[in-house]
Amino acid sequence: MQMDPWSTRTIDYEKLFTDFGIDRIGKLDEILSGNPLFRRGIIFGHRDFYQWWNDFRNGKKVSILTGMMPSGPFHLGHKMVVDQLVFYQNLGIPITLAIADVEARTVRKKTPDEIREITVNYLTNYFALGLDPKKTDVYMQTSRSVPYYRLASLMAGKVTFAEMEAIYGTLSPGKIASALIQAADILHKQLDGYEGKHRILVPVGPDQDPHIRLARDLAERIGLIKPSSTYHIFMKGLDGQKMSSSKPNSYISLDEPIEDALRKVKNALTGGRISLEEQKKLGGEPDKCMIFSLYLYHFELSDEELDNRRRMCESGKLICGDCKKELLDRIEKWLVDIHAKKVKYRPIAEKMVDEMMDYPF
Amino acid sequence: MQMDPWSTRTIDYEKLFTDFGIDRIGKLDEILSGNPLFRRGIIFGHRDFYQWWNDFRNGKKVSILTGMMPSGPFHLGHKMVVDQLVFYQNLGIPITLAIADVEARTVRKKTPDEIREITVNYLTNYFALGLDPKKTDVYMQTSRSVPYYRLASLMAGKVTFAEMEAIYGTLSPGKIASALIQAADILHKQLDGYEGKHRILVPVGPDQDPHIRLARDLAERIGLIKPSSTYHIFMKGLDGQKMSSSKPNSYISLDEPIEDALRKVKNALTGGRISLEEQKKLGGEPDKCMIFSLYLYHFELSDEELDNRRRMCESGKLICGDCKKELLDRIEKWLVDIHAKKVKYRPIAEKMVDEMMDYPF
Repeated sequence: MQMDPWSTRTIDYEKLFTDFGIDRIGKLDEILSGNPLFRRGIIFGHRDFYQWWNDFRNGKKVSILTGMMPSGPFHLGHKMVVDQLVFYQNLGIPITLAIADVEARTVRKKTPDEIREITVNYLTNYFALGLDPKKTDVYMQTSRSVPYYRLASLMAGKVTFAEMEAIYGTLSPGKIASALIQAADILHKQLDGYEGKHRILVPVGPDQDPHIRLARDLAERIGLIKPSSTYHIFMKGLDGQKMSSSKPNSYISLDEPIEDALRKVKNALTGGRISLEEQKKLGGEPDKCMIFSLYLYHFELSDEELDNRRRMCESGKLICGDCKKELLDRIEKWLVDIHAKKVKYRPIAEKMVDEMMDYPF
Repeated sequence: MQMDPWSTRTIDYEKLFTDFGIDRIGKLDEILSGNPLFRRGIIFGHRDFYQWWNDFRNGKKVSILTGMMPSGPFHLGHKMVVDQLVFYQNLGIPITLAIADVEARTVRKKTPDEIREITVNYLTNYFALGLDPKKTDVYMQTSRSVPYYRLASLMAGKVTFAEMEAIYGTLSPGKIASALIQAADILHKQLDGYEGKHRILVPVGPDQDPHIRLARDLAERIGLIKPSSTYHIFMKGLDGQKMSSSKPNSYISLDEPIEDALRKVKNALTGGRISLEEQKKLGGEPDKCMIFSLYLYHFELSDEELDNRRRMCESGKLICGDCKKELLDRIEKWLVDIHAKKVKYRPIAEKMVDEMMDYPF
């Protein structure tokens, strides 16, 4: 059996291990191996994950922190984090969800209206994907609490300009404020008055590692426990290139009309050969196929079925048209369900955001 | 009559008018000319002061914001701001006093214990000098409110790195965080939920003008009224050089034993001549005399008496020993009174600080 999400990689993951000190995910116990993201190596790396997991398995207090940047449409790439949150929430682990509106406003220059709209939409999708709004501590960075802002302000004295520049590159006042507040997102639940010291896991894509590094450095300097993190592989776009919010044809959005999403899947890059004849002779190439990638990341939870599909493809027995047709059926059914859930959850998300959002300008 | 606090200047005040756009204080109405700091030109410059003052005279809402940096001993230099606050408070104008503990901790690296001690002591002195604790809105930057921090965070997106560098010189994360929170100090009372838009005056020494400039630029960009400011001349030190917290002999502290303060006054630089004979012939030089400066800034509220003292000195009739003796008597009497008041106000200041101070590290 081959499970190789690595073939869909678009960034140099090796460098994360050698240059940035991220560790490889190792042994999986019976709970973790029940999660396809772990089992298939899609969650590939971590910092101090096993300490966090052992604390959980030993009945100690642990929690999850995740951040959401209200920017762009919500697509399948975002779903990967939500799948993890739902997995942990179902284990009874408390989830905190920070909406990074300070960065959205100060760095990405989104207007309040844009932020409201995108945040409502993201939250709606999170809930439609299974995150329980009642069990999730959702907040916007601009509406948290005095101890949280106090933490962010005081941490400004615990890091030098050169250190922040080394982590983030060129700085601006907005980037510095955002980075410090993100460190407060990750660390504030360890404060007295919140939960007190405990291990916090932040499941992210590798592009978010700078925030993890800053928060870990700061935690050490202010007497808190360094947060743990895991890293998941980014899906490639439907065109086999980098998935990007600026290229609508590279992703399936949960917001677009279902027929648009299906059309994109129909046009996705496959691992098929030039002709049907050649394909029957040489077999297909699933590791180059975005359809296979969609099964791998999202739409085939059974390893046996996935492995069978790979073998059938590689042997030339499964032709692209049939493989794609089956995926289209699954996606259509799934999107119909998601869209129905979104109708249900949108008012809840709207109420949540309206209660939090309060911009002076 | 000559009132020339300019002779005691240690910085290039002219440049403030020509290069930085500070305006000269002009006409004084009957209320302002009742205040020796205005009347003697010690408060020498301003930005939009008259708009603020006219709003006050016309019965519109106005307020005062002042900041206190808990750093070093409390001396007569600090008294000049307090004298202004008391003047305005007696006119019924609301005073807000921000304790700049974010800068104290992140930039000046003061410990929580140092900050507690210094803040209690400063507040005690403010109250002993006549500021009414019941009528003053005192807060520490680390313990304010969500709308205040929200304002500071969002303003990070309204100023560029280059602009902050032009105002403050070399930056650090601590300096950027402190500068933004100081802008929030100056502006937050204009928020809905506080007092709403109104003119705020910030009476400062010219060294604080960078904060005023940043706050004024930001106010314009976020739809608030630009804050007004006044600037007072710094007293020289007792040695005729710059008064500095790092040179205890350059200042009279309200915290030190009275005999130490009096000894320093005895040793202060005077405008006396080499010999008594020469002094009787040429007269003294009050504009070079730190004793005269103490009368001018603090211990002679009557212009007639001050002018008389100048004439007596310049004509050689008043010799330094007598002039100094009279000042020593006044200072001693005054310090005895202040020390007694400090005993009364210290528990009030302690309670205030203990209720506000809450550092996670």
